[in-house]
Amino acid sequence: MTTAPKTPLTATADGPDLPSNWDRWGADDELGTLNLITDEARARGAAQARTGRTVSLAQPIHPTPLVSGPFAPAVRELSPVQQLMQYCGNAPASADVMLVTNHHARSTHLDALSHQFRDGWVYPGRPVAECVTPAGVRHASTGAFAAGITTRGVLFDLAHDGPLPPGHPVTSQDFEAAEARQDVRLEPGDALVVRFGWVHDIDPERPLPGISLDAVRWMHERGVSLYAGDLADAHPPLDPAVPGPMHRIALPLLGMPLIDAVALDELAAVCAELNRYTFLLTVAPPRIHGLTGVPVNPLAIF
Amino acid sequence: MTTAPKTPLTATADGPDLPSNWDRWGADDELGTLNLITDEARARGAAQARTGRTVSLAQPIHPTPLVSGPFAPAVRELSPVQQLMQYCGNAPASADVMLVTNHHARSTHLDALSHQFRDGWVYPGRPVAECVTPAGVRHASTGAFAAGITTRGVLFDLAHDGPLPPGHPVTSQDFEAAEARQDVRLEPGDALVVRFGWVHDIDPERPLPGISLDAVRWMHERGVSLYAGDLADAHPPLDPAVPGPMHRIALPLLGMPLIDAVALDELAAVCAELNRYTFLLTVAPPRIHGLTGVPVNPLAIF
Amino acid sequence: MTTAPKTPLTATADGPDLPSNWDRWGADDELGTLNLITDEARARGAAQARTGRTVSLAQPIHPTPLVSGPFAPAVRELSPVQQLMQYCGNAPASADVMLVTNHHARSTHLDALSHQFRDGWVYPGRPVAECVTPAGVRHASTGAFAAGITTRGVLFDLAHDGPLPPGHPVTSQDFEAAEARQDVRLEPGDALVVRFGWVHDIDPERPLPGISLDAVRWMHERGVSLYAGDLADAHPPLDPAVPGPMHRIALPLLGMPLIDAVALDELAAVCAELNRYTFLLTVAPPRIHGLTGVPVNPLAIF
Amino acid sequence: MTTAPKTPLTATADGPDLPSNWDRWGADDELGTLNLITDEARARGAAQARTGRTVSLAQPIHPTPLVSGPFAPAVRELSPVQQLMQYCGNAPASADVMLVTNHHARSTHLDALSHQFRDGWVYPGRPVAECVTPAGVRHASTGAFAAGITTRGVLFDLAHDGPLPPGHPVTSQDFEAAEARQDVRLEPGDALVVRFGWVHDIDPERPLPGISLDAVRWMHERGVSLYAGDLADAHPPLDPAVPGPMHRIALPLLGMPLIDAVALDELAAVCAELNRYTFLLTVAPPRIHGLTGVPVNPLAIF
Repeated sequence: MTTAPKTPLTATADGPDLPSNWDRWGADDELGTLNLITDEARARGAAQARTGRTVSLAQPIHPTPLVSGPFAPAVRELSPVQQLMQYCGNAPASADVMLVTNHHARSTHLDALSHQFRDGWVYPGRPVAECVTPAGVRHASTGAFAAGITTRGVLFDLAHDGPLPPGHPVTSQDFEAAEARQDVRLEPGDALVVRFGWVHDIDPERPLPGISLDAVRWMHERGVSLYAGDLADAHPPLDPAVPGPMHRIALPLLGMPLIDAVALDELAAVCAELNRYTFLLTVAPPRIHGLTGVPVNPLAIF
Repeated sequence: MTTAPKTPLTATADGPDLPSNWDRWGADDELGTLNLITDEARARGAAQARTGRTVSLAQPIHPTPLVSGPFAPAVRELSPVQQLMQYCGNAPASADVMLVTNHHARSTHLDALSHQFRDGWVYPGRPVAECVTPAGVRHASTGAFAAGITTRGVLFDLAHDGPLPPGHPVTSQDFEAAEARQDVRLEPGDALVVRFGWVHDIDPERPLPGISLDAVRWMHERGVSLYAGDLADAHPPLDPAVPGPMHRIALPLLGMPLIDAVALDELAAVCAELNRYTFLLTVAPPRIHGLTGVPVNPLAIF
Repeated sequence: MTTAPKTPLTATADGPDLPSNWDRWGADDELGTLNLITDEARARGAAQARTGRTVSLAQPIHPTPLVSGPFAPAVRELSPVQQLMQYCGNAPASADVMLVTNHHARSTHLDALSHQFRDGWVYPGRPVAECVTPAGVRHASTGAFAAGITTRGVLFDLAHDGPLPPGHPVTSQDFEAAEARQDVRLEPGDALVVRFGWVHDIDPERPLPGISLDAVRWMHERGVSLYAGDLADAHPPLDPAVPGPMHRIALPLLGMPLIDAVALDELAAVCAELNRYTFLLTVAPPRIHGLTGVPVNPLAIF
Repeated sequence: MTTAPKTPLTATADGPDLPSNWDRWGADDELGTLNLITDEARARGAAQARTGRTVSLAQPIHPTPLVSGPFAPAVRELSPVQQLMQYCGNAPASADVMLVTNHHARSTHLDALSHQFRDGWVYPGRPVAECVTPAGVRHASTGAFAAGITTRGVLFDLAHDGPLPPGHPVTSQDFEAAEARQDVRLEPGDALVVRFGWVHDIDPERPLPGISLDAVRWMHERGVSLYAGDLADAHPPLDPAVPGPMHRIALPLLGMPLIDAVALDELAAVCAELNRYTFLLTVAPPRIHGLTGVPVNPLAIF
């Protein structure tokens, strides 16, 4: 498999100045900004684990039965996970299968870099048809996360005073204000955890706040390795000319993996209680290769 | 839901002396031996994280396409995970669903306490029909693991000299020899990781070695919170009168969760290199309630 | 596979007098009352096809997307069929998979004889464990319908004057009144189509009418080969001592296949228009072996 | 939904002379050549049913278990249907779900007109994005087959002397020779059943014979309503400039539904025995709307 000729970003309609890591770690790279988790960054993370107190950043998922009808109640709203209890004959055991929608607005999941394309290219400039096939993903899939992710996590609690206003564009100023307020500095290789105080819910009356392109540039400059937020991109877009800065720019151009729909209320409470906004963050998706994304249960260990 | 009258264990055919925790943490308990992970145990685990070097204990899973036929190659052997790439219309994105066999001999997965019954009772003495329903598990499901598991892990590398012999019964002597050889002592609340040097493969010519009832008693006395092994129960059973000490005694009577089919070669190599057989162990299954088991990617953090 | 010793029906709690075909067509029989479709019966059916005017007896099924979330709307009520559109790469084609709940109250489906057991025995007296396995049905599955069913169909329109009253027990008198009113006589090997004027809907305020044991005896005596109805068994049971005469007696004891939840309004209108209550009935399920039931689209050809 | 501006076929690279029905039955038509099944054609079909002797044209499908692992054997080759036996608690019943690959080379299935596109248009000239969505098909789906298909079927047994040679292009001459040899004439509205004497199997050593563009033109002129064959398109293509005359021309331009992978040995034997190559053909897919295709069990009734 040869590397595709890369689209010169300067030639795209996006203009020449979008942040990009396409030329940074080689044409075969699948890790993207996870490359920033150096030994030093990892040690900084490990140093955060002191008492072992652990907080889950995942929303609970209650599966719906894979079948409705005579043997199970009818479903009102399909869960990210459907479950089917399995006939075991006479074994003194129970077992089941589950059907998982990997990208689901109410499931805490990690997006692989192949999840979003940029002008027909997958990070770092490979043609979609080479990467994404009917039989699974061949480049930049969840296989890149097989060994787990371990680094220091930093929470920016933008909702310390209550949820962000509808439609609020999160900018670098919000981030730097959080650093000052929380007395913490995000270092290269850290994972950035952002709390909006929202849950994802499409409601035309309440536009979702979201990360601005300015904030993406800041993450790029500061060396964020991984983004996790209760929200990410605004809906409707903050700027229709540049929709989805996290999913359509940070993911495919920076190669920054993204954890959608994390649950941050408990984390914020613990950080406030300890007056400490840093922790060891571990992300350990089931070691399944070839997916475009996968549910995860990120743990913050204090 | 009221608590079922408990079967007095002394009245079972197993005899009065099988180890049990049914009366230890209350009739509603769903954590079992995870109750042993006290603040002290958790801090002992956190103290193991120093450099942040991380080893995955999961076997890689390569999904097979959920459909064969014109758009994907025919399958020769079904993977624990089947994947279906999803039509996204004209979106510049890819997405997929996966169908997961939660209990699969080649998948690293965490068994919930409801996975195995004892004489028709689920830990700690609740009737199966109350706990396991066609629409999912109501008691002692994976919901008990929602917040993740964090504690100290201890590797007993029984295969330091090569794989254990076929049919070898692992006893308390093997464990104590490992403690002496590795200069480590398993403390209450620790997770026990046992390396046989095998991968699970049913082969009538090569009986699987396995954990003996004696070794289960030892785990009970020493306060193991969680078991993870490249193997667990022998096949065929070591003692036909007491088949499956891990799945049929430790799981339903002690309430000890079990991680099947972990991959331990890399962990053993790192432990040997560092001459350190303890680490921070994190287990963070997707936060899905109501399952009988779930794939996991346990991480050993040094 | 040897034939299991048969439970003498006289020894069951049901009493000695339940109708049964267990001793009629041999211990290996999988066709049950379909054996009654002789060449003569089949020719009687063929003779009904004159103009070729065709009426479907199936309810329409509108699938729900197998995944909800960003690419498809959330589901309010799960359909008998879930559908997933399949990524086809760049092919100028679309394809899909479907997940089918074979027994679903709102799906027109044909029950295989293994669908219901009698005191632990499958028709005609084989132990359940031998017939129904975790890997599929080994005896009396949908495999028995592989070649399709073709015979004369006779509609008894019990709802010619409006839906039957709630809880109404359909008896042999109702059937004989229909024969007289419609000037038709059901002959051995005919398929019996019964219109209650209801759709299946569990509603505690409106008890479902249903087929009585008396009516089952009548079908047995008259040689009905196949039953199809907009309803079958009452809910709650007409007689709690003998619940479900169609599913629990006719199916497992007579070996009479059953089509649940057929749609009969159009058929009744055409029969009334033509003043003809007989037609060629064809039932042609997808030729899939080993199932407990399967959706069908029965056609009445005039 | 408004009708899309139609691509003038004369403007396509295919040249002006490909056969097409795009302007024949209106912009909203979903039936295509099934419109040719007039009352007269249907009566001609009904007249074929005399003895009721019935032959299935479907290949048998043996499902594979949806899960492999401890409770079911591992799969060597995935069937078009995967089955999962369903846990029923203590009900005296068995039930299951099935996962169906609607387009599968070894499954007898009916292609909906939306299955194949022509230059981005679905029959009869509607844009793909309007017809095919992530949540199912909105135009020219299997919904068009809801009421079943009933017409006269005509078998052209091209393999009466043995299988056609590898790579043989079936032309109008083959068809007319069959008419002469079998003393039959295909009339407008008839279903054409073609026996190659092959089963679909990709084998580079043995090029599949297939229907030529010339034969498609003949079908168009003669008014074939439906095609069913043990093969359809050659592989590799007979003419690389016009690949797939059945799937890429007859289906999307003529609007001719196609039954792939029918089983014709028994039918050919019965036709030879009776010296009659016409029969009542019924096709009755489960009445499921919105699919791109669906398994069927076509019945030939004599």
